[in-house]
Amino acid sequence: MSPDSQEGRTTRILLDGHGGDGAPGIVIDALVQALDKSDSGLVFGIVGRSDLLLPVLRDAGIAEQVELVEAADIIDMCEAPIVALRRKKNSSIHVGARAVRDGYWDALVSAGNTGALMAISMLILKTIPGIDRPALASTIPAVGGGSTFFLDIGANVDCTSEHLLQFAVMGSCYLQAAEGIESPRVGLLNIGSEDIKGTDVVKVAATKLRDSGLNFIGNVEGTDLFGDSVDVVVCDGFVGNVSLKTMEGVAKLILYELKSELTSSIIAKTGALLASGALHRVKDALNPSEHNGAPLLGLNGIVVKSHGSADAHGYLSAIDVAVREVRENLIDITVKTMNAMAET
Amino acid sequence: MSPDSQEGRTTRILLDGHGGDGAPGIVIDALVQALDKSDSGLVFGIVGRSDLLLPVLRDAGIAEQVELVEAADIIDMCEAPIVALRRKKNSSIHVGARAVRDGYWDALVSAGNTGALMAISMLILKTIPGIDRPALASTIPAVGGGSTFFLDIGANVDCTSEHLLQFAVMGSCYLQAAEGIESPRVGLLNIGSEDIKGTDVVKVAATKLRDSGLNFIGNVEGTDLFGDSVDVVVCDGFVGNVSLKTMEGVAKLILYELKSELTSSIIAKTGALLASGALHRVKDALNPSEHNGAPLLGLNGIVVKSHGSADAHGYLSAIDVAVREVRENLIDITVKTMNAMAET
Repeated sequence: MSPDSQEGRTTRILLDGHGGDGAPGIVIDALVQALDKSDSGLVFGIVGRSDLLLPVLRDAGIAEQVELVEAADIIDMCEAPIVALRRKKNSSIHVGARAVRDGYWDALVSAGNTGALMAISMLILKTIPGIDRPALASTIPAVGGGSTFFLDIGANVDCTSEHLLQFAVMGSCYLQAAEGIESPRVGLLNIGSEDIKGTDVVKVAATKLRDSGLNFIGNVEGTDLFGDSVDVVVCDGFVGNVSLKTMEGVAKLILYELKSELTSSIIAKTGALLASGALHRVKDALNPSEHNGAPLLGLNGIVVKSHGSADAHGYLSAIDVAVREVRENLIDITVKTMNAMAET
Repeated sequence: MSPDSQEGRTTRILLDGHGGDGAPGIVIDALVQALDKSDSGLVFGIVGRSDLLLPVLRDAGIAEQVELVEAADIIDMCEAPIVALRRKKNSSIHVGARAVRDGYWDALVSAGNTGALMAISMLILKTIPGIDRPALASTIPAVGGGSTFFLDIGANVDCTSEHLLQFAVMGSCYLQAAEGIESPRVGLLNIGSEDIKGTDVVKVAATKLRDSGLNFIGNVEGTDLFGDSVDVVVCDGFVGNVSLKTMEGVAKLILYELKSELTSSIIAKTGALLASGALHRVKDALNPSEHNGAPLLGLNGIVVKSHGSADAHGYLSAIDVAVREVRENLIDITVKTMNAMAET
């Protein structure tokens, strides 16, 4: 932990009781596991409709250990963010974000509607000074057990070079805080390593990154996301989302093909049976649940998005991300970096 | 074959003797295999420096069966396209493209510098009337042995909605000609299936595609590239290139992880040995050589790009693509479709 970390202080994490495919069951299963880990410095709350949440908390035997925060409205997974933002002002996300803004809770974790979570968090928490828009990030598995931190993965479809620079700051500060990497290597996603490559926005972003004081290593390509040469990769949210969904698609295709190939003959079938432990471990490594917890970065408060289809184990990863962000002072680190950049 | 196909006529394919990692050896190995297939309607030529090519043709014993077209200049793989275009006017690509333009040859196949191939082909062959810019396409493997035709994969980084519409026409006509698909399903790559998603360019492109007369099925996502719901997917060249390189990266990562997992214990090792045939077939399915031959579409002449690192087998696939494009009258089909669209 850094000298700034809030050692000794209680960390208060609020979970959204609604949203996601298996809420509230999965949220409460994750909560049971989190409480079992018995980190005495952690306090958990759950925000939502108490008539729906309290019985499940009681069934799980944890009603006494969790603070229940009342919120009357529930946002549907397919609801337009703007509608949710305006018409459901007592949603679990609204109430949760206000509680974080007011300092009663240190972080909000939600598996709800991403667009609504982003829009409402932005409205209530605002962004860190100097940051125009929050971004959504993901951790990509890389060779040799490593990983690459990748943003924006869909929050901002149209980006300027200034936005890309801000994403680089957010990603770099996140890795410093959450992973303890001192000077994260930042790459700009492009279609070639040469300076002449890419759109005008990307070319200008490269110039700004070179002057930023960040550890900018230059242009990187789609293949580099899975290597060990870069820690943070930034791009606009359209490109990031397509790339992320391409990964999902390829992984599914490969596992599908392997499965059908491996059951196509008796010999291969026997081989597959003997190798099944290994195959399952690889499948797990590519499972979004294992890498769950997409931080919403750039907000003036900590909000973590859990994948809508994550299981309790995945939801627990998202909780862990929130705890690390709080304890390692992500917001302070980002504010300081933005200030230092503004001064140069 | 369609009623329009050039049955009975000789098909004349010119191969670029330079460019690519293993030229001219791999080109000539592919040529030997192509000649062995003994399609009597095929005539092959090779363009380049005869002092370098003739000895290799003689060694391979095919000097008598292949027409040698002299070209004095060689373009380096890393040379800037604009420099190659202007300063090496007697390069194998220049001479080859002029020979296609003048009708001496029906198609040019090259494993050379992609940017130079695109720029020179565009200058010499021009585009089909109504098409502003040529595009580069790739065939993506999909579940169940199917495939998706994907463009633009890097020729055009900034695209208007009109360009995306033109890519859809090119892709659709290619699948009609080369794969015999009557009414290819066209999808627009986006970050969600809903109409409100994406950049303004993409939203306008969706409107144009809906009115185009093409079989437009709407927005598709990165995951859909590997499914069986769509035949042609269009996007700008920046997004397409990132997506394609993401695929490469994921495939490498998965095979790397599988390999290390499968050799991590005696049991898994035995399993991997028994399953190795199946694993290799999957690796082959994801090998670019197997799906080689990226057509440069939209040009008023047939040019096919072979991957710079393709082996002779991969180069042969690129030759096959060129032969199908010629025999099934790709250019005529595209001209007719563009005309029909202009009239409505």
